[in-house]
Amino acid sequence: MQIGMIGLGKMGYNLALNLANNGHSVYGFDQSNEARISAKESGIHIVESIDRMLTSMPSPRVVWVMVPAGKSSELVIDELFQKMKADDIVIDGGNANYKDSVRRAAQADEKKMHFLDVGTSGGISGANEGACLMIGGKREIFERVDPIFKSVSIQDGYLYAGESGSGHFLKMVHNGIEYGFMQAIGEGFQVLKQSQYHFDLAKVATVWNNGSVIRSWLLELMESAFKKDARLENIRGMVASSGEAKWTVETALDLEVPVPVIALSLMMRNRSLEEDSFSAKVVAALRNEFGGHSVIRK
Amino acid sequence: MQIGMIGLGKMGYNLALNLANNGHSVYGFDQSNEARISAKESGIHIVESIDRMLTSMPSPRVVWVMVPAGKSSELVIDELFQKMKADDIVIDGGNANYKDSVRRAAQADEKKMHFLDVGTSGGISGANEGACLMIGGKREIFERVDPIFKSVSIQDGYLYAGESGSGHFLKMVHNGIEYGFMQAIGEGFQVLKQSQYHFDLAKVATVWNNGSVIRSWLLELMESAFKKDARLENIRGMVASSGEAKWTVETALDLEVPVPVIALSLMMRNRSLEEDSFSAKVVAALRNEFGGHSVIRK
Amino acid sequence: MQIGMIGLGKMGYNLALNLANNGHSVYGFDQSNEARISAKESGIHIVESIDRMLTSMPSPRVVWVMVPAGKSSELVIDELFQKMKADDIVIDGGNANYKDSVRRAAQADEKKMHFLDVGTSGGISGANEGACLMIGGKREIFERVDPIFKSVSIQDGYLYAGESGSGHFLKMVHNGIEYGFMQAIGEGFQVLKQSQYHFDLAKVATVWNNGSVIRSWLLELMESAFKKDARLENIRGMVASSGEAKWTVETALDLEVPVPVIALSLMMRNRSLEEDSFSAKVVAALRNEFGGHSVIRK
Amino acid sequence: MQIGMIGLGKMGYNLALNLANNGHSVYGFDQSNEARISAKESGIHIVESIDRMLTSMPSPRVVWVMVPAGKSSELVIDELFQKMKADDIVIDGGNANYKDSVRRAAQADEKKMHFLDVGTSGGISGANEGACLMIGGKREIFERVDPIFKSVSIQDGYLYAGESGSGHFLKMVHNGIEYGFMQAIGEGFQVLKQSQYHFDLAKVATVWNNGSVIRSWLLELMESAFKKDARLENIRGMVASSGEAKWTVETALDLEVPVPVIALSLMMRNRSLEEDSFSAKVVAALRNEFGGHSVIRK
Repeated sequence: MQIGMIGLGKMGYNLALNLANNGHSVYGFDQSNEARISAKESGIHIVESIDRMLTSMPSPRVVWVMVPAGKSSELVIDELFQKMKADDIVIDGGNANYKDSVRRAAQADEKKMHFLDVGTSGGISGANEGACLMIGGKREIFERVDPIFKSVSIQDGYLYAGESGSGHFLKMVHNGIEYGFMQAIGEGFQVLKQSQYHFDLAKVATVWNNGSVIRSWLLELMESAFKKDARLENIRGMVASSGEAKWTVETALDLEVPVPVIALSLMMRNRSLEEDSFSAKVVAALRNEFGGHSVIRK
Repeated sequence: MQIGMIGLGKMGYNLALNLANNGHSVYGFDQSNEARISAKESGIHIVESIDRMLTSMPSPRVVWVMVPAGKSSELVIDELFQKMKADDIVIDGGNANYKDSVRRAAQADEKKMHFLDVGTSGGISGANEGACLMIGGKREIFERVDPIFKSVSIQDGYLYAGESGSGHFLKMVHNGIEYGFMQAIGEGFQVLKQSQYHFDLAKVATVWNNGSVIRSWLLELMESAFKKDARLENIRGMVASSGEAKWTVETALDLEVPVPVIALSLMMRNRSLEEDSFSAKVVAALRNEFGGHSVIRK
Repeated sequence: MQIGMIGLGKMGYNLALNLANNGHSVYGFDQSNEARISAKESGIHIVESIDRMLTSMPSPRVVWVMVPAGKSSELVIDELFQKMKADDIVIDGGNANYKDSVRRAAQADEKKMHFLDVGTSGGISGANEGACLMIGGKREIFERVDPIFKSVSIQDGYLYAGESGSGHFLKMVHNGIEYGFMQAIGEGFQVLKQSQYHFDLAKVATVWNNGSVIRSWLLELMESAFKKDARLENIRGMVASSGEAKWTVETALDLEVPVPVIALSLMMRNRSLEEDSFSAKVVAALRNEFGGHSVIRK
Repeated sequence: MQIGMIGLGKMGYNLALNLANNGHSVYGFDQSNEARISAKESGIHIVESIDRMLTSMPSPRVVWVMVPAGKSSELVIDELFQKMKADDIVIDGGNANYKDSVRRAAQADEKKMHFLDVGTSGGISGANEGACLMIGGKREIFERVDPIFKSVSIQDGYLYAGESGSGHFLKMVHNGIEYGFMQAIGEGFQVLKQSQYHFDLAKVATVWNNGSVIRSWLLELMESAFKKDARLENIRGMVASSGEAKWTVETALDLEVPVPVIALSLMMRNRSLEEDSFSAKVVAALRNEFGGHSVIRK
C-alpha cells in the first residue's frame, strides 16, 4: 500500500522503515530538517511538506501521524483534516488521550473522512522489528488498512479493539500496568540491594527470566541495564511520566475502580522528582511541635 | 503516694514534676548527671542511683520507667526486676512494643511482682499539664495506683484498657493513626502550596481549627509551626520514625487487616530519608532501555 | 443585612436559621414544597420562587446558593445570572469544583455582577451553631458581605482565601485531608477490633480525645457513634464519596504532588462499594493458573 | 545422582519426575498414602518412610524437602537433622522464611551436615519441564549437587545466590514483585471491564503478549484464564496469600525501603477476604455523624 508517515523520530522513523522493508510505498515527513536528512537513503520517500505528501499519494490516502501527543499532534491533525478529502484515512499512532481520539473521530465523520486511533507498544525495537498495535475506529476502515498493521506488527501483535478511542484506551491501561510492573521491579531490587546479602543483580534478573513466574520483557531489559551498570551508579533516580498512567488513574476514579498500585507507581515517580518534599516538611514540623523531636535545619 | 521515676528526659521530667505538683512524693533518677542536676529544686527528690531510689521508698514500691524503649528500657527493667520484691509495681510508660510488655508482665508474675504497661500521649505539654494514658495489666494493680494516673492525666484522659500489653497496643495504634493524620495534613498543605493560589498557610490552619470537620490538635500545632516559618523554609523534609507505626503495620499484616493509609504514611517517611531512590533508578533505567528515554546521569 | 438563601436542605436551612437568629433579614427558597413548608415559622421569610426572592430584596442583592453541587447548582446559578443585575452578589456555598467557580466568577464579571465561592465545613451542627467558611473572590466584595460571614461562622471560623476559586479549592483540600483522617481512624479501630484484646471502642475514642496527639472532632464523633452501636453492627461498610477528594487527587496529579494517603482513602471507599472485585478475580485466576491454587467458585 | 524427595504434592512430584526423567535415581516419600500410591509407576522409587529413604541411599545423602513451609517443613527437617549424618545434605525447596533458613543452616553446621535453601519458581509446569531455582548456602555444597539443580531447571534457570538464606530471600522478593505484577494486571483489566468499551479480554491479553512492553508469563496465563471464562464469572474475587509478600513488606520496613506497590498488592488481597470492612463501617459512621449522610443499615 501507499502510506504517509508524519513524524520521523525514534518511533516514526523505525515504523516507516519497517513499512518500507515490507514492500509498502512510504512517504515520510518530519518538520525537522535534520530528521528528514537522516532518513534519506532509507527506502522512504522523504517529502518537504505535508502538502507534498498529500499530492504524492493516490486517493483515498492514508496518513499515519507519529508525533508527540499534545500540541504537536493537534497541529498536524488539524492540518490534515483541513487538507485531506472524503474517504481519506488519518491514523494517530501516538499516545493521545482516548477522549481526544473520540473527538477526532467525530470530526473526521463530519468531513466524511476516517480516523483510527492506534496505541503502539514495544518501544523502539518493536517499531523496527514488529510492534504491538491496539486499534480503535470503524471496523471497515480498520480492515481497509489491515495490511499495513499486519506488516509492521509482530505475529498476533495487533488487535482491532473496538470503536473510536478504544485503541488509545487500551494503550493507556497498558501503560498503567507497565507503571505497576516497573515500580514492583524497582521495589524488589531495592530490597535486594539494601539487604544483608550481596546479590549480583544482573544474575538475579537473568535467573528470574528463565522459568520464574515473573519472567517478562521488562526483566529482560533489567538484565541488560544491570549488565551495563551493576548498581546503577551512573543514573539518578528521577523519573518523569508521560500522561497515560495519570489518565488511567483519572479514568479509574471516574469508574470508581480502585487502582492503588497504578496510582502509587505514578506518585512514587512524582515523589522522585522532588528535591525536598513539602509534605515531609509538614510532618517534620509537627513532630517538632508536639514531641520536641529535632528537625533537620537547612 | 510515693513513686519513683526513672528517666528525667523531656517526658519523664515533666511527668515527675506534674506528680510532685499534685502532692505525690516523687523520687527521680536519670543516669545522666546533667539531667539529675537540672531536675534539682523542682520538688522532685533526686537520687543518685536506682538502689537509692528503692531504699528510699516504703514497700510495696511503685516505679515508673520513662526511658527510651529498647536497650535503655530493657536494661532498667532488668535491673528493677532483679532488685525489687514481691508486690512491688513497675510501670513502663515508654513506647515499648506490646509483645515486650506481655513478656515483662509474665516475668513479673513469676516473681510475684506486678507490671503495668502504659502508653503515654500528649507530647511534652501533655506530660506537664495533663497527659493521656492507656494502661494495660491486672485490673487490681491498676486500681492500686489509680491516684497516680488520675493526677497526671487530663480529665477523662486515662483508661484501663485491659490485660497486659493492651496499654502499649493502644498507644501503638494511636500512633499509627497519628502517622495517617500527619501525612494527610502534609499532603493537603503541599497541594495548597503548589497550587495556583497564594494561600497564607497559617491562616488556613487557623480557620480549619475553628469549626471545620478536621479541627484537631495536630492542626493547632500546624498553626503554630506556620506562624514561626510561613513556608517551612528552614527545615528539611526528612522524617524519622519511632517504632509504633511500623508495629501497627506488622500487626495489621498479622491480622490481615488492610491499613493502606498507615502503611503509606510510614513509607513516605522512609522515602523522605533517601537522598536518591534505588527503586526510582531501576524505573529510570527501564525507561531508558525500552523507549530510549533519557536518564539523568550523575 | 438582607440576604436570600436558595436551598433549604440540612445545610441551607440551618445556615438560614443561623442568619435569621443573628438579626439578618433572610429570604428562603427551596424548589421542594415540603422544604418550604417545614421552614415556615422559623423566622425565615419563605418565598415561592426565585423571582419573588429577587423582587423582595433591595438592590444590590445578595443571594447565597446552598444546593447540591452539579446539575442543581448549575441550574440555579444560571437562573440567577440571568435575572440578577449589575452589582448583585451570588454566593455559592456548595461543594462546587473550584474550576467551575473560576468560570462562574468570570461570567459574573462580564455582567458586572459578583460571585463569591464559599467552602463550608462543620456539618449540620456547624451550619446551625457556627460554621467554618473559606471564601474566594474579589476582596472588596468579600468585605461588603463580611457581616454575613461573620455572623454565621464560629469565632475565627472564616477566611478570605484569595481570588476566585480559592474558597472551593481550600474546601476541596480540606475534604481530602478529612478522607485521610477518616480512613486512618477506620484502620486503627479495625486493628483494635480484630486484635487479641477486647477494647471498649467508645472508651478508647474518649481517652484519645482527652489529651492525646490525635484528639480531634472526628474522634469525638466516633465516641458518639460507638456509644450508639458499640461494634457498629447495624451499619454496612459501604461508603460513597462526594467529589472533593477525587478532585484533590486529580489536582495533585496535575501538580505532580504525591498524595498517597488521600488517594488510598478514596480508593478504599470505592472498594467498599464493590460486592466482588474484578481485580481480585484476576489475581485469583492467575494463582489458579500457575500454582493450581484453588479458587473459590461461585 | 541419587536423591531423596520428601513431599510428593504438585511441586514435589513434578520435580521428582523431572529428576527421574533426567537420569537421577530418585527416592520419593510422602506422608500421605494416596500421594505415594499415585506416584508409583512414575520412575520414582517410592519408599514407605523417611527411615527407609535414608537407608536406601549411599552416604553422603542428599534429601530435597518439598513440603508446605511451616509446621510440616519444620517437622520433616527436624527429623532429618536427627537421623542424617555428617556430610549429608538437606535441601529445603519450599517457601520458607529466609530467617528460618539461616537458623537451619547454623543447626546443620553444628552437626557437620549441610543445608541449602532453594527458592523454587515457575509453578507446576516449571517443576515438570524446567524450574527456576534460587539457591543459598555454602558454595562448595551447592557445587556438589549442581548436577541436580542443572537437570531440573530450565536453561540458565538456576542461580547460586550466596550464603545461607539468600535463596529464600530471593524467592521472597520474587514473590513480592509477583504480587505487584498480579495486582497491576488485575487493576488494568478491571478498568477495561468497567469502561465504556466492550473489550474481548482474552484478545487483549493475547495482543499484549505479542510485542508489548508488558509481555510476560503472567499475561500469558491470563490469556488462558480468559479463554476459559471470558469475564471470570465463575470465580469469586477472594485471594489468600502465602507468606512471602508479607515477609517482603516486613523486611522492607526493617530496611526502611518504601514498597508501596508490594504492600498494597498484599493489602488488597487481605481486603478481598473481608465480607464487610470494619474500617469502612467506621468511615460510614463518621459521615453519618457529621453530615447526616445516610448509612446503609443491615
